[in-house]
This record gives sequence, C-alpha cells and structure tokens, in this order.
Amino acid sequence: MTAFDPPRSVVRRLVEDALAEDLGILGDITSLACVDEGLLGEAVFVARADGVLAGTALATEAFRQLDDQVDVQWYLHDGDSLASGAHLGRIAGPLRVILTGERTALNFLCHCSGVASTTHRYVMAAHGKVRVLDTRKTLPGLRAVQRAAVRAGGGFNHRDSLSDAVLIKDNHLAVNSLAKSVERARSCWPGRLVEVECDSLDQVIEARDAAVDRVLLDNMTPEQVREAVARLEGVVEVEVSGGVTLETMSAYAESGADFVSVGALTHSVPVFDIGLDMM
Amino acid sequence: MTAFDPPRSVVRRLVEDALAEDLGILGDITSLACVDEGLLGEAVFVARADGVLAGTALATEAFRQLDDQVDVQWYLHDGDSLASGAHLGRIAGPLRVILTGERTALNFLCHCSGVASTTHRYVMAAHGKVRVLDTRKTLPGLRAVQRAAVRAGGGFNHRDSLSDAVLIKDNHLAVNSLAKSVERARSCWPGRLVEVECDSLDQVIEARDAAVDRVLLDNMTPEQVREAVARLEGVVEVEVSGGVTLETMSAYAESGADFVSVGALTHSVPVFDIGLDMM
Amino acid sequence: MTAFDPPRSVVRRLVEDALAEDLGILGDITSLACVDEGLLGEAVFVARADGVLAGTALATEAFRQLDDQVDVQWYLHDGDSLASGAHLGRIAGPLRVILTGERTALNFLCHCSGVASTTHRYVMAAHGKVRVLDTRKTLPGLRAVQRAAVRAGGGFNHRDSLSDAVLIKDNHLAVNSLAKSVERARSCWPGRLVEVECDSLDQVIEARDAAVDRVLLDNMTPEQVREAVARLEGVVEVEVSGGVTLETMSAYAESGADFVSVGALTHSVPVFDIGLDMM
Amino acid sequence: MTAFDPPRSVVRRLVEDALAEDLGILGDITSLACVDEGLLGEAVFVARADGVLAGTALATEAFRQLDDQVDVQWYLHDGDSLASGAHLGRIAGPLRVILTGERTALNFLCHCSGVASTTHRYVMAAHGKVRVLDTRKTLPGLRAVQRAAVRAGGGFNHRDSLSDAVLIKDNHLAVNSLAKSVERARSCWPGRLVEVECDSLDQVIEARDAAVDRVLLDNMTPEQVREAVARLEGVVEVEVSGGVTLETMSAYAESGADFVSVGALTHSVPVFDIGLDMM
Amino acid sequence: MTAFDPPRSVVRRLVEDALAEDLGILGDITSLACVDEGLLGEAVFVARADGVLAGTALATEAFRQLDDQVDVQWYLHDGDSLASGAHLGRIAGPLRVILTGERTALNFLCHCSGVASTTHRYVMAAHGKVRVLDTRKTLPGLRAVQRAAVRAGGGFNHRDSLSDAVLIKDNHLAVNSLAKSVERARSCWPGRLVEVECDSLDQVIEARDAAVDRVLLDNMTPEQVREAVARLEGVVEVEVSGGVTLETMSAYAESGADFVSVGALTHSVPVFDIGLDMM
Amino acid sequence: MTAFDPPRSVVRRLVEDALAEDLGILGDITSLACVDEGLLGEAVFVARADGVLAGTALATEAFRQLDDQVDVQWYLHDGDSLASGAHLGRIAGPLRVILTGERTALNFLCHCSGVASTTHRYVMAAHGKVRVLDTRKTLPGLRAVQRAAVRAGGGFNHRDSLSDAVLIKDNHLAVNSLAKSVERARSCWPGRLVEVECDSLDQVIEARDAAVDRVLLDNMTPEQVREAVARLEGVVEVEVSGGVTLETMSAYAESGADFVSVGALTHSVPVFDIGLDMM
Repeated sequence: MTAFDPPRSVVRRLVEDALAEDLGILGDITSLACVDEGLLGEAVFVARADGVLAGTALATEAFRQLDDQVDVQWYLHDGDSLASGAHLGRIAGPLRVILTGERTALNFLCHCSGVASTTHRYVMAAHGKVRVLDTRKTLPGLRAVQRAAVRAGGGFNHRDSLSDAVLIKDNHLAVNSLAKSVERARSCWPGRLVEVECDSLDQVIEARDAAVDRVLLDNMTPEQVREAVARLEGVVEVEVSGGVTLETMSAYAESGADFVSVGALTHSVPVFDIGLDMM
Repeated sequence: MTAFDPPRSVVRRLVEDALAEDLGILGDITSLACVDEGLLGEAVFVARADGVLAGTALATEAFRQLDDQVDVQWYLHDGDSLASGAHLGRIAGPLRVILTGERTALNFLCHCSGVASTTHRYVMAAHGKVRVLDTRKTLPGLRAVQRAAVRAGGGFNHRDSLSDAVLIKDNHLAVNSLAKSVERARSCWPGRLVEVECDSLDQVIEARDAAVDRVLLDNMTPEQVREAVARLEGVVEVEVSGGVTLETMSAYAESGADFVSVGALTHSVPVFDIGLDMM
Repeated sequence: MTAFDPPRSVVRRLVEDALAEDLGILGDITSLACVDEGLLGEAVFVARADGVLAGTALATEAFRQLDDQVDVQWYLHDGDSLASGAHLGRIAGPLRVILTGERTALNFLCHCSGVASTTHRYVMAAHGKVRVLDTRKTLPGLRAVQRAAVRAGGGFNHRDSLSDAVLIKDNHLAVNSLAKSVERARSCWPGRLVEVECDSLDQVIEARDAAVDRVLLDNMTPEQVREAVARLEGVVEVEVSGGVTLETMSAYAESGADFVSVGALTHSVPVFDIGLDMM
Repeated sequence: MTAFDPPRSVVRRLVEDALAEDLGILGDITSLACVDEGLLGEAVFVARADGVLAGTALATEAFRQLDDQVDVQWYLHDGDSLASGAHLGRIAGPLRVILTGERTALNFLCHCSGVASTTHRYVMAAHGKVRVLDTRKTLPGLRAVQRAAVRAGGGFNHRDSLSDAVLIKDNHLAVNSLAKSVERARSCWPGRLVEVECDSLDQVIEARDAAVDRVLLDNMTPEQVREAVARLEGVVEVEVSGGVTLETMSAYAESGADFVSVGALTHSVPVFDIGLDMM
Repeated sequence: MTAFDPPRSVVRRLVEDALAEDLGILGDITSLACVDEGLLGEAVFVARADGVLAGTALATEAFRQLDDQVDVQWYLHDGDSLASGAHLGRIAGPLRVILTGERTALNFLCHCSGVASTTHRYVMAAHGKVRVLDTRKTLPGLRAVQRAAVRAGGGFNHRDSLSDAVLIKDNHLAVNSLAKSVERARSCWPGRLVEVECDSLDQVIEARDAAVDRVLLDNMTPEQVREAVARLEGVVEVEVSGGVTLETMSAYAESGADFVSVGALTHSVPVFDIGLDMM
Repeated sequence: MTAFDPPRSVVRRLVEDALAEDLGILGDITSLACVDEGLLGEAVFVARADGVLAGTALATEAFRQLDDQVDVQWYLHDGDSLASGAHLGRIAGPLRVILTGERTALNFLCHCSGVASTTHRYVMAAHGKVRVLDTRKTLPGLRAVQRAAVRAGGGFNHRDSLSDAVLIKDNHLAVNSLAKSVERARSCWPGRLVEVECDSLDQVIEARDAAVDRVLLDNMTPEQVREAVARLEGVVEVEVSGGVTLETMSAYAESGADFVSVGALTHSVPVFDIGLDMM
C-alpha cells in the first residue's frame, strides 16, 4: 500500500506553528551570527536505526517555509523500510536555512517515523491475520500527522473524530440500554457505522441482536474474543482493544477478530532516530 | 518547587485546536444521540499507575471551552506525586459535556503526566547531584506544554527556542573556528548565554579559553566528563548530552557536570494512564 | 428528534469572523454617534413567515461576543415550527449592542432557518417514506452550520467531508473498474462506508456484486430507482440524487430508496425572514 | 465595466478554510485509494445554464492550494455572460488533485455565479434607469466574495460594513429626532455619507431639511417613491429598499430613484450550475 | 464628544497577539519564581505628564486575558485630560498577574495616550477652525487602535482603508485625466466619497468642474489654500495635507479649509508616560 | 555587522494582517477604477532624509503577497546608511499592484527605518564606549520587527520576552529580599541570565554579593553609575536605564557601564520619510 500524506493545508499550518515556536522573536541567533548569509551547504538524512519512514512531506515543508529555493530530495518515501545507516534524502541550499530548519524538520520526521516504526512492529506481530488500527488517543494537534504515519507503518485508521462514526461506550450504556442506544444512534445518524463497546459475552449477544456494525471488545482475553467471534457468526465486525501488546498481539491475531486497536501507536511513541549529516 | 502552568494564551489556543480536531463538523454524534441534553453527571479523575501529575490546566480548559458552567476541581496539582488509584480531581456538569470533552482532556493530561513522570524518574536517578534539562527535541506545537510538564517532574528548562541563547554546534564550527564563532556570537548578541558543543577534550580547552558560559559535552563517557570538568575548573558550566539513560544517569550525576539534558523527556514519552470514572 | 447545535468552537469562530467583517475598523459608527452609551433596550425576534427555526446558538453568540452581559432568551428552539408573527425570543441589554449585533445575528438566524425550512418542505414531501440527506454542496465555511440546520429541519447529514466515507464516482470508475475500485477502497480504509455512484442498472448489479454498502443512483427516474431497489434486494442501501425537486420528491419517496440527497438544501437557500423588533 | 476580484488575502483565507472543512483529517480518501499518484488528468468547466460568471479567482486558488503546479486557464472571465454548454476554462494536472479540489472549487464558482446571475437579472429589469445595490444581508464570512460577484453581475456595492457610512434607521430615530441624529453623526464622522431611512413623506422632507446625503425609502410604492423624488429636487440621493422583486423592479426603475438595494442578491441565491467534465 | 473604543473583536485579538509575544513559551519567569501564587496586590495607574487618556479598554483586556477575576477600575476615561500625577485607575488581584500583564497593558495605554495627546495638541492649535484628521500612515496592525486614540484626542478619522472612499492621487492622474478618473470612479463606485489630490490651482479648478466631493491640497502654503478655497466656493470640501506642523497649524486653520490631515498623529508618536504604582 | 531580518514566519503574518487592514472588503477601489488591469509600472524607493535603512524584507513581502510576479530589487540593504535623495531600490510590475501595496510597504519601511535611524543616533552618541539596547517597551505586535530594526541601526537586543531572562524589579523586591529573590530565580531557572534592578548603591552591593549576572541601574546619574561600576569590579555587567537622552548619552557612555537601554528606540519613534516615485 502507498502511504498518503496528510492534507496539504494541515501540513502547512502545523509547520507554521512549529517554526514559530522554534524561531521566536529573533530567529536562529547562532546561525545568524556564525554563518555568513551567502554560504551554501548540502546535507543528507541518515537513519540511525531500523524501521519505517514517515513525515517526509513535513520535513520538506519546514525548509521550504524558511526559503522556497531550498532543494529537498528524498531517496526513500513514507512507508519504506529503513536500515540503520541508510541515506533517506538530501537537502541543498543556504547553510543558514539548513541549520535553522534542521530541528523542526527532524522533530516531525523522527516522531512520524517513530509512529510508523511502532505501528510496523504491531503489524508484523499480527502476521496478516488481523488489521491494526489507531485510536483517538493521539497527541493534541497532531492527529492528522499521526494518522498518516500509522498508514505508513501498515496500520489502518479508526474514525477521525467524534463526528464521523458512532461508538457507544459504557458511559452511554449507563443512560440507556444497548438496544435503545443503538436505535437512537441509527435514528439520528442513519448510514453511519455504529459500534458498541462490550465488556461481556452477554453484551456481545445484545449488540448482535441490535444489529450493530461492529463490537469493540474491551480488555478481553484472546479466548473470550474467540468465543465472541463465534457468537457473532461473521455478521458483525470485531475490534479488540485494551492493553494489547507486541507480546500478546499474536494470540489476539489468531482469535478471529477483524481489528486490534492500539493506543500505543500514537500515545507512547519512542522517537525514531534520524540525523542530518552535512556533506 | 511549585509547578508553573504554561501561559494562558498557549493553553487556550492548544485546547481550541485539539477540540476542533476531535469534534469535527458535527460534534460528538454518539453523545448527542444517546444522552439527553438535560442530564447531569459527575466523574472523578483516577490515576492508573504511580507517577507525577501535570497538565491539569489543559484538562480544565478542555471542558470549559465546551461549556463554561462545568465545575472542575483538582485534589492534586501539577507536580504532585500520584499513587495508582489516587483520585486527582472531579468534574460535575452536563453529562454530554463530560463525555464529549473526556478524550481531549485525557490526551493532554496523560501526555503531560507522562512527561512529568518520565522526567521524575531521571531526576530520581540523578540523586540531586546534577540537574536534568529538557531539549529542543519536543513534539511540534507542544513545546510550551512539554516544558511545563518537565518542570512539574522536577526537571529544568533549556533554552525556549533558537532565539534565546547561543548554542554553537559542530556544523557552525565547520565554518569558523571555535574562538571566531564565539567572538561573532558575543559581538552580535551581547549578554546572552553562549554554549559550545564539544566532542573532545581539546575542544573543551578551546571553549574555556574562549570564555564561553557553558560547554555541551556530546556523547562522552562519565570519565571523559569528569576530566573535562576538572579542566574547566568551575569557571564554565558543564552540560552533558547524548544518549544518557536511566541506567547511566547516576554515573553522569557523579561526574561533576552541572546539567544532563535528555531528549527522551519529550521525544519518547510513554503515556501516563489516567481514567475518568463516572460516579 | 432534538436539533443539535454545531460544535461550540465552530460557533465561536464563525461569529468572530462575521463580526470582524461587519464591524470593520471603527465599529458601528451610526449607533456610536446616535445612541448614548448608557441606554438600555429590549427587543423581540419575530417570524415573518411560516417555517422552522435554526441558528439560535449563533445569534446568541453574536450578541455575547459584543457584550457578555447581554441577556438573550429563546421561547422557541432549533427545530421548532414557526408561524408568521410568532415571537421566537428576546434580547435585553445596552441598546448600542443590540443595534450593532442585529444584522450579524439575523444573517445567521435567517440563513439557518432558511435551510431548516427548505429541508422541512422536502421532508414533508417525502411523507416519511425516505430520508432526506444533505450533500457536500454547501456554502464555503458554513458546512457545520448548514449541517446543523438541515437536522433542525428534519433532514439527515451525509458524510462530513472527503475524509469520512468513500464515495466512488464516474471519474474514479474511468480509472479502475468498479470491482477494482471497491477493492482498493476496502483495502485502504477498512470499516468505512463504501458508496458507488451508478448511472445504469448494469452498474447497480456490479455494485451489488462488489458488496458495496450503498449505491448512489444519479439522475434516474423513479421507475429506474424502483427497478434498482428490486435488484439490490435490501442488501445494499439506496441513495437517490440529482435534480430531485419538491414536485418529484413523492414519486421518489415511493420508489423504495432509503435516502434522497438534495443539494438545494444548502446551495440554493431562500432566506427565512425574521425581524428584531424593539419593544 | 470590468469585474474586480476580492482582495488576494481574502481569497487565500477563505479557500484555506473551505479546503480544511472538506479535507478533514485524512483528505480525499476515495481518490487516494482509487487513483494512482502519478496519473494526470484534464477537465473543462462547463456552464449548465445561462447566466453570468463569477468566482474564477477562488476556483483557481482552490486547486493551487492543493498543488501549486496545477495549470488552470479561463476562457471566460468574471462578469462574462454564459450560455448553457459554454466551456469556461480548463484545468490540467494530477488527477487526484483535480478530483480532490473539484467540489470546493465548484462550491465557490457556482455560488458566485449564482450571485452574479441573480444580480444580472435585476440589472436587466432596471433597464439602465436605476442602479442595483447589494446590502449587508450577506452570508456570514462571504461578504467580500459576494460583493465581488454582485459587481460581476452589473450591480454596485453598498457600504462594506457598519464602519464606513452612516445609516440612521427607525431604531436610531426612536432615540433622537432625525435632525438631532444627523447632527450627531455629522459631528462625529465628518466627511462620511449620511443616509436616513424614511417611512413617510414627512420624514423625507425632514431628511432633506437636515441635508442628508441620501434617503433610504423603505417599503414604499413606486408612486410614493416618485413623490419623494419630486420633493427632494435632486439635492439628495434616493435609495429604494424593501421587497423589490424582478416583477416590480421596472416600476421602481421608472420612479426616478438613484438606487434600488436588494437583499435577495446575497441572502437568497439559487446556485448557478457549472460542471467540471473530465476530458 | 465621547471617545469610542475600537471594536471588541479587534481589542481581543490585538491583546492576544501582544501577550503571546511577551509571554513566550514559559511565561513571566521572574514573577513565577519570585512571587508566590497566592499573593494579592493592588496598583494604581498614574500619569507622569499632562495629556489625554486613551487605550483603557486594551489595558483592561490585557489583565483579563491573563486572569478573568482581576478587578480593573478606571477613574478617568478615554478622551479625558490628564494632569501629571493624576490617578487614572486601579487594579486589584493576584500579584503575579499584575506584574505579568503590566508591560503589555502599559505598552497599549502609553502608545494610545501618546496618539491622543499628540492629536490633542494639533486640535488645540487649530482653535476650532479646522478639523484634524488622521491618515492611512498608521503603524501596521494598529490602525483600529490608533483611529480610536485619535478620536479620544479630539481628532477625526479619515477613510478606514483603501476600500471605503476614492482618493485619486498623482499616480492615478498620470494614467487618465482628472475628469476621466473621476468619471471612472463615480461609475464603478456610486455613492462613495470621491476626493482628488491637487498640487496646483489649475487642478483645483479641474476638480471642482469634475464635481468631486473633496480636494486634497498637497503641500500648499496657507495662502495657496486660501485661494483654492475661494475658487471652490463652498461646493467642494477642502482637506489640507503635507507637512503641517504644530507651528504652522494655526495659519492653515485660518485658511478656510475644512480639514487638515496629519500623518504625525500616528506615524511619529512620542509615548505618553504612565506608570503602574503598587499600593 | 550585518543586519538580520525578522523570522520569515513573522514577516509573512504581519504583512498579511497589515494588508487585510488596508484592503478591507473591496480592495483598493481607486486603483481598481482608475488604472486598467494590464498596465505596467516601475517605481523607485527614495530616501527623503539622512538615516539608516530597515524593513526591506517587509516591504518586499507586501508587494509579493499582492502578486508574486512583482519584481522588487534593493540597491541598499537593512543597516545601510541613507543620504536624502538616495535611491534604495525599485519595483516593477502591474501598476495596480504597485499603487495598492505602496502604503503598506511604506508604513513598514518608514517605521523600521525610523527605528534604525533613531537607534543609530544613540549609537553614534555612545562613541563605541557602551552598547545601546532596546527594551520591552515595544509597540504591540511589532516586537520582532522593531528588534530587527534596532539591530540594523547598530543597537543590540535585550531579552525577547518575559520568558527568556530573569529581571528582578522593585515590585519583586517588595515581596522577597534581593538575595532571596535571586536564589529563587536561580533555583527555578538555572542557566539563565539573572539581572536585578537597583535604585541605590546599597542595592548594587547586595546584587554583587548575590552574584547576579547584571544590574540594571535605574535613573542614576553618570556619577552614580561610575561609582557602581567601581564597586562591581568587572564581575557583574552593568546596564543603565531610565531617561537617557541623546544629550546625556555621552556622559553615560563614559561611565564604564556595559549597556544603556533606551525605551525611546521603540516607543517614541519619529517616522523616517521614504517615498515611492513612479518612473
């Protein structure tokens, strides 16, 4: 699968905010003082570990907003596997611009590649038997960017926001019965996916009888999931969620579920180390 | 030390962006459908692990922007230690508002507390012998928030941005000599901290002779740091950086350095799990 | 069904933009000159036609942003039927604020009520036999507001944006076959609604065989729709689109389709006249 | 008369908002999945009715913000007459970009051309004997765009905002006499147009005696207007407002008034249908 | 005359920008460190010179955005005369908030009062015989604020922007004759003020014959102005511009002109010194 | 020393705001009416006085945002000395664009050059014996631009904001002793410059004993400064502030202080007159 960039307008705005944050009132005072304006430079992006690349559009944009004449080329692309030491791309242009934009570009690139690489590990652990989904547990302001990085890592995207699918949880079920909740949701928002969080097999049956599109099995063991899948007879999609780790993933992957959603893809991401080496 | 919130204007804007991202065009369609407008609710924030709290101002703001009548109270505050199971605070108000704001509030709270808790672990490992600093390796758009969370965890803040201190690195030294670079920086920006990244003892001596304010010892062993400290005779501050882990921290703490800066405080943060339990 | 306001953050931002546009650099120079600061006033919102109310949250916000002490009360609410002459609500506060905010508040209120009233006419014409949907043919910047007004009028909301459901149209089908297109969409975006635009019965069969969630029957006669519905055997949802008018609606409503989507709900809206009469 | 685009900065910002609204978090998921990145396309804008063109700058901007390499050319320009079937312009570039930007571009183009075409009908009905003005009854956020489209249709622009001319209405006259109100306005804002809304011939005389620049005759018959014009002896401009329709326009045009202002040019605009046909 | 605040939305946005600029990433690090959170304070605004007050709404807003519980009261108001030593108002609330907001509040207050006081000196020099106008030579971003301060000082506001009146200058006259230019302007923008810049008496005659509303006499001596006024016979308003100083103002005031416009009211404003003294 | 532009993102945003402010809803109605679209023009920026140039990046940006094809070239650069009559640069492009952007470009250019020229006068008066600093008394929203202009004039920049250095003033000292305040600041914000405002020699001694980095001598005579310098023995930097004028500067320059900070560089700036003459 090809990785898709986040929408252009999101890329543009996030990079504007990040540069404003890092440049402050005066700009890069070190490079202004120590590097003459006319000097040119060239540098190469180098992977310092094994993983999956993501975030190149953001890194390019960071340099371009500083100087639209900078030349950025990528040898590898979002979604490509990286071996430590691999050259990912290069940048050529005014040395000041390269040094000033370096950290902002790398902050995006290393975070996105961290998300992609983490996702990829879960995807590998799933052995192609279940699809790995992200969640709404994203870092504030970075959802579009993290969603794109999850795709680059071979994962799939859950609903974008509270606005585009119905997900009925325990707190909603405390107000109305499952059947009543589903009926209200169907009635207000016809044609949208309706998913219900289930904590027990009884709820799973109830959900099936209410003809939901998907159940979210929360904190169940692989055995419980297998049993739920059996009861649902392929009519209702099954998403497993809650504390699935790289270690337990393969057990869940064998359980017959359609999806495993993993908050850690976006809320607990170790950085992927990429350097920018001057040539 | 008291933890300090990020500036109000930062809090307001970040929460606006995060809510816009999560509410989309229609809002929380599940709660709109399944929860009647008049219903009231009450919920408590509960720690699910041991750590340090941060981000309460952001969580409060998330609910307030949805409905300024919501009542949010905190029993614990940024910088306080948390034991798993502890009640951190409570919220009372329209049930719809609580459910709609929950994820945005928790995304901030759990990430900030993750930063604070991670920082705290490094601070503990330093045994009070060296101060732990953050870096510019922050998540784009979240620097002010992460800086505040680092403080809540007992760490200290490095320069805000490229604009407020001089930090001469290898790429600058490839253009001019260390002495010349320092002279240019002092001449352009008198009265600002001048720090130089050093990879060798020779550079450390050079930096001392150029009367810099601080050296950044990059990827040195604790022994090399100790030697550098000896040469600097207390005239120049010493910051250690590069790959310091929780395991190696105590060795560096004993090395006589003034600061250890750790990118992982902000670029590789495991979430700290906090739940919002309805009462 | 209760009508739901657009998200708070959308309301706040749209009203800010609208007031900025109408106040310019100096503000309401007429009222500043001709009305003394201390004067109080009271006015009532009066319907000048029969229809359905929408947009009250926006009208309230317009006055509140000018002066948060203004008192706005509504006797009727979004989604309520209006008879010409009905008193919808009242405002009390500084006369200058009332006069300054009047046009912005009414521009929102009359447009939204126009959308709701238009929608309501289509809904009435559908005799409860088909659900009326809006489209992406909204006025730029006003989608969230128009979506809310459609709901107030008894209609339902189609996908929010290009981001939350797959809708394969003729231009996509010119690139890949229907089956291939559906397969690619399912593969990239599992768990999302997949809809295909069909211009012929053959395509409808093809869509059914590709197991799409919904077909969009474009510019078909009621008879053609009926035939398509028969072929789909209730397995695939049917949406009718393209030139459905108030006159032809009842014929389509009888055709067995699930939805009729109508661009005119949002792209060709006659204003609903509401006045603000001083008391 | 040449039609003038809205200011560049307005065009840029409105298109940013409209694209953000339509692209959401993920972008155009259908075209991403179903259209390969490298594919090129070409399409032509085709009028589906007779009318007047407006909004081309906005349509161009919509595609350019997605990809600044897209080539957009217009055969016809804002203000030109359109016959159904006419080719207005063409676009060539990556097929994904064309499909992704299509709806946003058309939403602007069809609404603006709707405004221009509606305006043109009123202008035609005025037979060159009275000038047709817009009002402040514009759609929130779209005033600059609607003002430009009114000009493209042969109409003229009333005051921009509350800030640039004095218009004393009945609610102001309830506070102070007409003469006093005019005096206060002249005294605060010398050199600005002062207009007074008049409901009766007596008020018209009063306005003339107060040496206003223009009277706004509200809801008068053509005969009443003619009488008012006679009393004003050419010294004061006359604007007619309130419920003028295409049917009654010619009677008002013969009345000797200088202007007829029509809210329907902007508050009740039927869309003008334009398609984008792939070649 | 009462002074009028700038529109609320302008005040809100400008103060947001100014606080963001001054608070940076960490906030007021001095007050955070040196002043405990619970401490309360009270301070009084004191004039350090004689002049005219302006900008109180902006100063209030600066503190309110930091903490909406702060209590700000004004004893004097925009437009009031100030004697050195006068107490203008007071603020009470958390000491940290007072110290943090002080500079931003005073930057607005002292600049606005500087504009008002400068304006007032020109108005005094005009002895009530001519009205003093501002120009478009304002500081970028501050036009609304400076316009309000000019009014507070007894001056009057010229056109807001390029959008609200026609002002034909030498560069326009190089393209078309004066008569042709006026005709084109009248034809495009009926009902708007048309003013022409004149450098000679011949042009003044030409302007009168073209029935302009106002002439702008650029860099003429008082005698030349007097002669121009005589030729215009009261039919055309006269604005004098270009290098009028406090010294030459009275000569121009006697010349019969209606307005003198002075760029120095806004482009060369000495600050008016106001202090915030803790009580 | 080379002058450094403000960060690109600041330039872009400030120019957007300034153009929006000056173009309003309709744009430059005079040039739209009086200048045909196809006409080209060329103009030269001419100094009307002697001084120092600053703000060229902002002037260029103003035209570019209107039309990115405009060609702007500068013969002189920020920081260069200007003689009255000197040609600073030229612009060529559509005449409408030149006339529309002229005032915004000049407002930036003339204000910035005013700041640079004023700064230069203070720098000259300092005879190279003391460095001239700006303050936080900047015009709201324009700090980055004014900071850059001060550098162009040969001055130096004080702290950017409240966030990047500690400056303990009398109001802080009313809460805690000087020693205690310094200790708290050092403890919270290690590695940042700590400066203390001193009103007396006793305080200067106290500050020295507390090992501050710099003292701010407020409103002292040159003799008092000299005495303070003597007591500080070169260990602590000395900044003089408060009412230093061009006349008294040389006396302070001889006093042995390191810095003189001058609010008037930014809060009371006479415009520097630059014209744009059509060729």
